[in-house]
Amino acid sequence: MDVVDIEGAFDSFEETWSPRLAASLNGQELKVAKLEGEFVWHSHPDADELFWVIEGDLTLELEGEPDQQLSDGQLGVVPAGVEHKPVADGLAKVVLFEPAGTENTGDADAGERQRDVEPLED
Amino acid sequence: MDVVDIEGAFDSFEETWSPRLAASLNGQELKVAKLEGEFVWHSHPDADELFWVIEGDLTLELEGEPDQQLSDGQLGVVPAGVEHKPVADGLAKVVLFEPAGTENTGDADAGERQRDVEPLED
Repeated sequence: MDVVDIEGAFDSFEETWSPRLAASLNGQELKVAKLEGEFVWHSHPDADELFWVIEGDLTLELEGEPDQQLSDGQLGVVPAGVEHKPVADGLAKVVLFEPAGTENTGDADAGERQRDVEPLED
Repeated sequence: MDVVDIEGAFDSFEETWSPRLAASLNGQELKVAKLEGEFVWHSHPDADELFWVIEGDLTLELEGEPDQQLSDGQLGVVPAGVEHKPVADGLAKVVLFEPAGTENTGDADAGERQRDVEPLED
């Protein structure tokens, strides 16, 4: 069994908006990401996406409902098809859980698109 | 969007070996559980199971490989079909991630079986 230390995972990279793969199971992926600033509006037509803030503050702007603030230790799920825009005022360490192959920018044709999630460094 | 505070989720119940549902997405469930003592040997034939220790120490005894220790902030995945026995010397607060409908005792016919995961209290 591979063991991942979540703090070590966050310490292993600096890039923001560039999720790293922490674990794979049942066709789903657990990713760690550092978020800072504004991302693009997008949705994932077929994938619910879990955001879990480990440290920092994240605002999820959501189509058709009020912005949602997530702080340390808080999590929420953006349902499939719901347009959302993550915004982090400072650096936020966030765990993502979503189906394997889910692109970070979803249906948006944006420069931030990352097709393949990078593995953690050993 | 429903927001779950993970510390509040753990504070909302006392029972050990009785996972509570924190979030559902993509046919999967994120559960919080308090573990203390020894559980039964079991496996989940069709479900990988993620264990993420938020606080405490958890030993996963695993069929055919060395025991694996997980402490605060460490996670690992028990692959489908692998017999395992969770053991916590003290109280461990653990997040589980697995397909909806996965029974806690897997293929074991044990008294600890819990068919339906309970929701968090409001």
